[in-house]
Amino acid sequence: MKEAQIYELLSKYEIKHPKYKVFKIDERLEFDTFPCVLKIHTNKISHKTDVGGVETGIPNNRSLNAAKKRILTSLKKNGVVLDENDEFIVEEEIKGFEFFIGGIFDEIFEEVLLFGKGGVLIEIEKDICYIDTKADDEEIKKSIKKTKISKMFPAYRGKNFDMDLVVNEIKKFQRFFENEDIKEFDINPLIYCDNRLIAVDARIKPKKPLKKEFIPKTASLFENKNVAVIGATDKKEKVGYAIAKNALKSNSKIYFVNPRLKKLFNKKVYKTVEELPAIDTAVIAIPSGYVIETITKLIKKGCKNFIVISAGFKEAGNKKSEDILKEMAQKHNINIVGPNCLGIYNSNNNLNLTFAKSKIYKGNIGLISQSGAVLTALLDKASFYKIGFSHIVSMGNMSDFNFANAIQELNTQKSCEIIAIYAEGLQYGKEVLKAVRNSKKPVLLFKAGKSKEAKKAAFSHTGNIAGNYEMITSLLETAGAEIKSSTESLIFNPQFRNVKDITIITNAGGPGTILTDLIIKYKNLKKLDQNTVEKLNEILPPNWSKNNPVDIIGDATSKRYKKALKILSPISDLIFVIVTPQFMTDAENIAKTILNYKNTVAIMLGKDSFKKANKILEKNKKLYFTSLEEAAKIL
Amino acid sequence: MKEAQIYELLSKYEIKHPKYKVFKIDERLEFDTFPCVLKIHTNKISHKTDVGGVETGIPNNRSLNAAKKRILTSLKKNGVVLDENDEFIVEEEIKGFEFFIGGIFDEIFEEVLLFGKGGVLIEIEKDICYIDTKADDEEIKKSIKKTKISKMFPAYRGKNFDMDLVVNEIKKFQRFFENEDIKEFDINPLIYCDNRLIAVDARIKPKKPLKKEFIPKTASLFENKNVAVIGATDKKEKVGYAIAKNALKSNSKIYFVNPRLKKLFNKKVYKTVEELPAIDTAVIAIPSGYVIETITKLIKKGCKNFIVISAGFKEAGNKKSEDILKEMAQKHNINIVGPNCLGIYNSNNNLNLTFAKSKIYKGNIGLISQSGAVLTALLDKASFYKIGFSHIVSMGNMSDFNFANAIQELNTQKSCEIIAIYAEGLQYGKEVLKAVRNSKKPVLLFKAGKSKEAKKAAFSHTGNIAGNYEMITSLLETAGAEIKSSTESLIFNPQFRNVKDITIITNAGGPGTILTDLIIKYKNLKKLDQNTVEKLNEILPPNWSKNNPVDIIGDATSKRYKKALKILSPISDLIFVIVTPQFMTDAENIAKTILNYKNTVAIMLGKDSFKKANKILEKNKKLYFTSLEEAAKIL
Repeated sequence: MKEAQIYELLSKYEIKHPKYKVFKIDERLEFDTFPCVLKIHTNKISHKTDVGGVETGIPNNRSLNAAKKRILTSLKKNGVVLDENDEFIVEEEIKGFEFFIGGIFDEIFEEVLLFGKGGVLIEIEKDICYIDTKADDEEIKKSIKKTKISKMFPAYRGKNFDMDLVVNEIKKFQRFFENEDIKEFDINPLIYCDNRLIAVDARIKPKKPLKKEFIPKTASLFENKNVAVIGATDKKEKVGYAIAKNALKSNSKIYFVNPRLKKLFNKKVYKTVEELPAIDTAVIAIPSGYVIETITKLIKKGCKNFIVISAGFKEAGNKKSEDILKEMAQKHNINIVGPNCLGIYNSNNNLNLTFAKSKIYKGNIGLISQSGAVLTALLDKASFYKIGFSHIVSMGNMSDFNFANAIQELNTQKSCEIIAIYAEGLQYGKEVLKAVRNSKKPVLLFKAGKSKEAKKAAFSHTGNIAGNYEMITSLLETAGAEIKSSTESLIFNPQFRNVKDITIITNAGGPGTILTDLIIKYKNLKKLDQNTVEKLNEILPPNWSKNNPVDIIGDATSKRYKKALKILSPISDLIFVIVTPQFMTDAENIAKTILNYKNTVAIMLGKDSFKKANKILEKNKKLYFTSLEEAAKIL
Repeated sequence: MKEAQIYELLSKYEIKHPKYKVFKIDERLEFDTFPCVLKIHTNKISHKTDVGGVETGIPNNRSLNAAKKRILTSLKKNGVVLDENDEFIVEEEIKGFEFFIGGIFDEIFEEVLLFGKGGVLIEIEKDICYIDTKADDEEIKKSIKKTKISKMFPAYRGKNFDMDLVVNEIKKFQRFFENEDIKEFDINPLIYCDNRLIAVDARIKPKKPLKKEFIPKTASLFENKNVAVIGATDKKEKVGYAIAKNALKSNSKIYFVNPRLKKLFNKKVYKTVEELPAIDTAVIAIPSGYVIETITKLIKKGCKNFIVISAGFKEAGNKKSEDILKEMAQKHNINIVGPNCLGIYNSNNNLNLTFAKSKIYKGNIGLISQSGAVLTALLDKASFYKIGFSHIVSMGNMSDFNFANAIQELNTQKSCEIIAIYAEGLQYGKEVLKAVRNSKKPVLLFKAGKSKEAKKAAFSHTGNIAGNYEMITSLLETAGAEIKSSTESLIFNPQFRNVKDITIITNAGGPGTILTDLIIKYKNLKKLDQNTVEKLNEILPPNWSKNNPVDIIGDATSKRYKKALKILSPISDLIFVIVTPQFMTDAENIAKTILNYKNTVAIMLGKDSFKKANKILEKNKKLYFTSLEEAAKIL
């Protein structure tokens, strides 16, 4: 599409363009607004400036026709051969600040806008943000604020820049991109001038790719009154054994199915699925070849939820079977979790349908993980510190049940107060964004696969496209998710979310300084009021820091830690207690002291000298860290 | 200084400026090069554009005088009152790419240049690098490459940008800034046009602040044949006891001084320093009030090296005594380390003059720390893993002996192969840069005090100005230091410096992906050759990743880990072995297997299930981590 056509197309959406006139190649040029710009009007060249196809600052019609000659000479020199379809376009010259707006059709998120600083340096500067076409005013503003040039709003160096005006223009582009059959577009510059935004140079790639249809779930994954474990076994080395054993403790009715077994854990074992009474949930841990027929039989019996533990699907090159699973789920409006997953947990029924070895405590976190291994690692840490979950879903290959479903589903569950997600690749991006936007519960997200190299690794193991890290996390963040930088923070952060500000007690200034650097991104340091400072003056040596971080000086023993904690604990949200192995440091007693104060997290900065002290903390399941960086991750 | 004067000053250094002419306020303007620019020529306004004091693109003399009228009107409107000293300046209009160059006089580094992208958005974009005025061509290039716009070199969108030309111009500015009595300057834009750089707008703040004189050391701090411990004591709770005890094991001759003691550790104790035989080194651990007179007496006896452990100086508000220490050191050409420090260690003499509790192993790292606490924490970890040191210097308050001295000194020490520095604030920045530049040994540096809040914390505890983190680390990095992001990497990194590429063995894809993200900043992933892949094909399940990270699949037991290690260990520099607690994972056996392969670091991603396995690793002092982020820090 040539520029003039694009201008007209944009006009349909009330997007402004410069006054222009199109001429045949050999026509004499005549225009009435100066200065003006002359450009070759053709689809043959994408960067017209680079081949001398553009002349600017033309003051009159004589110069205009001289410019035409120069362009023709330059194009010839650059090997551009023109024909009768090519034209010239003359436009009024617009001067102002150069923004950029573009759109791409992303495999995950479909139509996504890119907005930011325009001009020739765009590829070097990359001062660009991502905006979903469904984003509202507030979300668009949040996106824009991710760019450096957003600091120009509301005014810069005496010139006004109206954010609302820009947001309003971006909304026109959202409609434009959604409604037109366009795969990509690119407007650079989009000029801010006289309180208007004017599209001055525009390119379009037509034909939108097909969109994948998303069918919302109506059955609830966590309706688990009658549960069958298909593949329950007495062979301890099989996952079917672990699941059966974990499931037993539930309040739900549990049924076992295995053709070669009569009894398991003193319970009857059904030979076939046909013999089962009515069930709502089935965990399937049988060889992959039998999965589809088993599900088919169970659908007939009215079963709605399938958790497919069995491996041997997409991850083993068997994509076809997985497509069948997806079709079945859509056709029968059922939930199929997995395949190749670790299972699910539902605290409402005290139902552990995973083969994880760790004890799962009841709590308020709804944990969704695309990696079974990351999940087991997190559960292992969580069980040690008795961190509890309302629900857990191991997503496996995500043939059917996906992140959007999971977020929606967890929103219907009262016991879930916070949603924590470990993601590698996404599907149905627009639906995920919608689910995040509509979520009444905070959504924490860790996204693996940042670097090119990591994406390669992720691809080979999950079969999911890892996508562009920056775009994915930006879009999710502006939609309302909180992006975490470590997997551990998914389970630790929920405990400390309500912490407003941090107190640091330390026997060494240096580590206090470093920790300040690390936490200040997430939380403020608590300001000590005069009263507190005076109280601390009484019990601390005169050269204490008089400030937070509270440096209680290198010769501090447990007694001084205790005195400081006594004053600071009642008025603090959370105290990081840093201990370094100094000459007078009685680490064991300090550890014991810390145990008495619930709102503390210990940071034991040593190893050899802290063996006993750390053992005390471990035994009492007190959260502690051995490095400052690790500790900061909980925020 | 007005623009025309600055242009002339710049000319002395062969820095180009546009052709210009200056006119009295009421003179009729006449110029001969068009288009041209008209500016008000006054010191009254710093941003002339903002008050309408500049007109550009003037095509002829008639327009020039019309522009003058417009400027006068606009200035009046903006409340600028002109007088007979004010003038107009007419300049030829230069068009091209707008760079920026400026200079500041920094408290730490004295004259520092700032170079980068110019134009009106400079304060928003901050695409700027720092260049020391002593930096050579190569260092200047390294600095420039830290900017985004450096990607324009050698050409961008058909236009040439010659890096050597820019470097050459920057060198002119180095000489200009060093030789002229200028505190600050600012040239924006510095226009790249027709293979020249032209300074188009220039401002200068005159009068350079006084520079602090740096007197190089001639005595070697590590000449420690005869060492006196002043304040040696039998009271175990005193640091004088710990130092005396640590010192005893040395090959140096050790003397104790304490007026109230006859014998200590079966050695004679001298009552006064006067009684001592000739010594070269004295460790001073006595109340601060006696330090200066003791040093004075020892100087008379020819003692060259003083390690002042005693606290109660700058950190306690007693700056005056510290100034005296500095003067004494400069006058007598001696080394005074501290005060308020932990001591020094010199492996050449097996001499531990610190009061650290940890055993110090002999090795190749020269460790310099501005925080005693960070030092003790690092030594505690190092002793556990038997990481060794050639020398250790606890810098304390740095009244005399500073980072520049320490780096120079360690360069004279054969046993030191790598220099690791923990720094909070710096002094004599130019000398530190010089020392880093000239260092024949790699210099690793961790700098605390990144955020505003942390700088406040650092200030209250070390009394050293923490400075601008970005500038300090940029300058040091371009001078040749390696900036580390955690204190632990100062002791772990030296062991892994020669590692070229990394192999990852994992029983879970997700963590392999995350670790890839974390390490790729520092090292490459090893590429597996066809032969290795085929060997692995034979021993791994068919769905292994066929790639590095080597995902040996969730059901891997110690046997599979062993087989993979057997193939990969001989051809790998360093292997991260990730273990997640999956259903089949026999963690203890895996731990035992890992012990057999020296070039491995274990990452045990769990807690509850790994208690025994981790104990095995601990007992064997095998380096292992419990989180991916921690593990990546060693690189």
